[in-house]
Amino acid sequence: MSKPTQTLTAIPLGGLGEFGMNMMVFRYGEDIIVVDAGMMFPESELLGVDLVIPDIAFLKQNRERVRAIVLTHGHEDHIGALPYILRDLNVPVYGTRFTLALAKKRLEEAGLLESAKMFEVTPGRLVEIAPYEIEFIPVTHSTIDCVALAIRTPLGVIIHTGDFKIDQTPVDDAPFDLHAFARYGNEGVLALFSDSTNVERPGFTPSERAVVPRIEELTRLAPRRVVLSCFASSIHRIQQVIDIAERVGRKVGFVGRSMVDNVEIAHDLGYLQIPDGIVVRPQDIRGFEPKKLLLLVSGSQAEAMSSMSRIAVDNHRLVTIDENDTVILSARIIPGNEKAIFRMLDHMFRRRALVYYDNSGGVIHVSGHASQEEQKMVLRLVKPKYFVPVHGEYRHLFRHAALAHQLGCVSGEILLLENGKCIEFTEDGAYRRDPVTAGRVLVDSGSLEEIEEMVVRDRKHLSEEGIVIPIIAIDKHTGQVESSPEIVTRGLMSENGNEFLSGARDVVARTVESSNLEERADWSVMKEKIRVDLKKYINKQTAKRPLILPVILEV
Amino acid sequence: MSKPTQTLTAIPLGGLGEFGMNMMVFRYGEDIIVVDAGMMFPESELLGVDLVIPDIAFLKQNRERVRAIVLTHGHEDHIGALPYILRDLNVPVYGTRFTLALAKKRLEEAGLLESAKMFEVTPGRLVEIAPYEIEFIPVTHSTIDCVALAIRTPLGVIIHTGDFKIDQTPVDDAPFDLHAFARYGNEGVLALFSDSTNVERPGFTPSERAVVPRIEELTRLAPRRVVLSCFASSIHRIQQVIDIAERVGRKVGFVGRSMVDNVEIAHDLGYLQIPDGIVVRPQDIRGFEPKKLLLLVSGSQAEAMSSMSRIAVDNHRLVTIDENDTVILSARIIPGNEKAIFRMLDHMFRRRALVYYDNSGGVIHVSGHASQEEQKMVLRLVKPKYFVPVHGEYRHLFRHAALAHQLGCVSGEILLLENGKCIEFTEDGAYRRDPVTAGRVLVDSGSLEEIEEMVVRDRKHLSEEGIVIPIIAIDKHTGQVESSPEIVTRGLMSENGNEFLSGARDVVARTVESSNLEERADWSVMKEKIRVDLKKYINKQTAKRPLILPVILEV
Repeated sequence: MSKPTQTLTAIPLGGLGEFGMNMMVFRYGEDIIVVDAGMMFPESELLGVDLVIPDIAFLKQNRERVRAIVLTHGHEDHIGALPYILRDLNVPVYGTRFTLALAKKRLEEAGLLESAKMFEVTPGRLVEIAPYEIEFIPVTHSTIDCVALAIRTPLGVIIHTGDFKIDQTPVDDAPFDLHAFARYGNEGVLALFSDSTNVERPGFTPSERAVVPRIEELTRLAPRRVVLSCFASSIHRIQQVIDIAERVGRKVGFVGRSMVDNVEIAHDLGYLQIPDGIVVRPQDIRGFEPKKLLLLVSGSQAEAMSSMSRIAVDNHRLVTIDENDTVILSARIIPGNEKAIFRMLDHMFRRRALVYYDNSGGVIHVSGHASQEEQKMVLRLVKPKYFVPVHGEYRHLFRHAALAHQLGCVSGEILLLENGKCIEFTEDGAYRRDPVTAGRVLVDSGSLEEIEEMVVRDRKHLSEEGIVIPIIAIDKHTGQVESSPEIVTRGLMSENGNEFLSGARDVVARTVESSNLEERADWSVMKEKIRVDLKKYINKQTAKRPLILPVILEV
Repeated sequence: MSKPTQTLTAIPLGGLGEFGMNMMVFRYGEDIIVVDAGMMFPESELLGVDLVIPDIAFLKQNRERVRAIVLTHGHEDHIGALPYILRDLNVPVYGTRFTLALAKKRLEEAGLLESAKMFEVTPGRLVEIAPYEIEFIPVTHSTIDCVALAIRTPLGVIIHTGDFKIDQTPVDDAPFDLHAFARYGNEGVLALFSDSTNVERPGFTPSERAVVPRIEELTRLAPRRVVLSCFASSIHRIQQVIDIAERVGRKVGFVGRSMVDNVEIAHDLGYLQIPDGIVVRPQDIRGFEPKKLLLLVSGSQAEAMSSMSRIAVDNHRLVTIDENDTVILSARIIPGNEKAIFRMLDHMFRRRALVYYDNSGGVIHVSGHASQEEQKMVLRLVKPKYFVPVHGEYRHLFRHAALAHQLGCVSGEILLLENGKCIEFTEDGAYRRDPVTAGRVLVDSGSLEEIEEMVVRDRKHLSEEGIVIPIIAIDKHTGQVESSPEIVTRGLMSENGNEFLSGARDVVARTVESSNLEERADWSVMKEKIRVDLKKYINKQTAKRPLILPVILEV
């Protein structure tokens, strides 16, 4: 590789200070590559927002410099923003086979597949995206075909772990490539960017295989149907459950769009081995002997309209839960989803199902992210000059930094970045640079449109306090009010309304009467006067502060 | 006690199928008593609702039969609905000293204290509320002055545990009265109603004293100020923290309204021992030597506008967090509050505070509720004829029932009830009866008014899709439209709006034009026509379904 003539800047656009919408940008001179393009699900305060993606203003400003988007794996928080970004910025996308298959599905849904430039890479191989040379290093995680990236630049090698755990006994026997990490560590690594998700957990994350004994026991002992829900992207989990079903003599049905889709993709690509004759067709599920059936169902997070949610309330075409059916939630309960998930499980309990939802009686779910000892292992193998914790809320990044500090394997500096905060690497050192625009873009999945924060604020206001619309008609020639004021409200009250409304009408009428003709001709003045007077009245009457939206109609 | 001439019915109105708003009603013949009157905080879907209380339609229908409300302890989920209920139904209220002190504060705020009939009872004593005789049995929990109830009726004794754990070493040396439970168990108990909250936890809940070593260690080693947040009602926790501060030579400041109020109440009543000279006055907190100061702060759940929330964003009059200050969250993270709490803690981390928020490094918080072994202990001591699990979502009640079943101490039947489902005890057995009205009443704390579900639905709709208000003015004599249609929107979009709006105006204009004069005279027809046409247009243009609210102004 040539001598460095430029500096290298790391620009985090997402995933540092939050879980989700992961996106890290590297710029060497005039060449930019983007690692991952993730989305996140909105908090409940973001009313009517379907998903959240990173603000890519920086990439748009540098449109002609962006060489590629490189994907580490196919989870939504790493590929989910692709359709929104490629619409604006149709750059080449690199990823492994399964990752690209999931990404292509997203792009197809958005009508962008034909124009997209997708390049498949093989784990363990090198790809040149000048001036970068990128090795896709196999790592283990909760989905398949996952890689870390070793990005060689003229200034040195950057390692970005993507999401990982160190599974010593992965289901597909394709282990975390410790040797590659060791090799780069020996050679010398400029900077390590590593997954912080599970930094609050001491020890090692158990292998994916750890779920087998308990799930097999429950399946073997199940008096009737087994309904198991896991993430549809957890192909290894699905493989193990299929294997268990085969061993205990049960057939398998797949239920839910994302489960059926992902199983089909993984099977087509050879990532999933499904024994002949084990699959029960959808139309046969209902009549199938319960004692001989296991169903793999999507909707583990109780997403609205998901199969699990609908099954729970007995509103699913194919599946009913009856007494003594076994329900296994083989998935993490993502913070924020607790209420919905437990509401769903409560319905299963009411139907007298045997419900298993945590590891208290035996392991039915393991995490896909590295715990502290694995994070230390990667730090020790790579022994980078600089270390940047990624993927986590602030405290996770902070604690990962503290872990590295305690370990003492970082020869230079440990750098705590947040979205938009840049760090420039030169031959002399690492320097913080002016932040770039970074933030969240709120997306309405129906229209694929951005929703501005102002609209969300309006909605929040509407949702908490309701809306009051005073309407008056003024004759444009005379300035005379042509009707008694009309008041429309929503979300404010439903009883004692008449008295309140006639009082409000009086307030508006008085405001108009007490204004001179000059004021009446200036509608913005009139609207503001009406708003202020009505606000006082409403607050006094109801202790509420609804959105007040005066309308003046010209007749 | 006289021979039974009547039957006894248990009617759960709250807390069975949810956490919070606990309320259990017992009716013997013509005499009703109510155990607890709790509220709960709304889920985030209940937009603009401040709190939720049980629907007491049943009590109102039986207004002249209600003899008393009996309180087990002073937590909001047991007393919080009192102001709303006493307004309708001013019956006598019985409770222990601290419980009544907290209840009186609520009633005072609502202007109901003078008219309220409050009767203080002493733990361990008997009170007669004919035909019932009630023993208030001392139990341990996370607040003080807590009791279980032994309610003697002509048909037998009912035991209601309230909330409890079995703390063998309570801070005030007032233990859980095992002997009373044993005595009633020996005598024979008709039915046990017992707290299910922690049924998912095996083993024993540690004593309240278990938090001392770690909190003392952190306080002793703290390089600067210690900021500890716990529930303001956790008087024993507060006592222990004060004691620790004294031992390590720190002064104590109380910050936050509920913290200051509860400390004052508990101190006035003699439940809190505060050494002379240890308290730092609010005005002295800011200038006080950080190394010599410990602050007890309310807002452990990151409630909006609470002291902890404001301190986290450096927006508090008295307290600033600086580098190396120690922050201890000595409280449970209540499900649903995770996001807000971690956002708050992240701010503390950003200020480089030393933040402790879980038990991973040593115990800084213990639960106030019985784990499985304690629940078994109570079941074994009481060995009731009937058992009714209370206080929990459905799965907690179910698992508590399963625990009792496995233990085998219930001689008759284990009864799974939910709110509104009644059970009638007779000399022959226990029989399920027709359900009574039960449900949630949504309350706006500003106006103390009920909010109808319809209003919440409107708000939800507004919040998700926004609102569109087409307005036309029609001359009442001629049926002529007197202005071009006006369209007001909120929460729908903020750009590309002009084109959309002029298109919408055209749609409305066309709808009006294409209607004959007869239709134009019938405004409900016109409104519906406008609504339908506009809905089609908007859905096509934006894929949205806002609330459409046509207004016709008569000029």
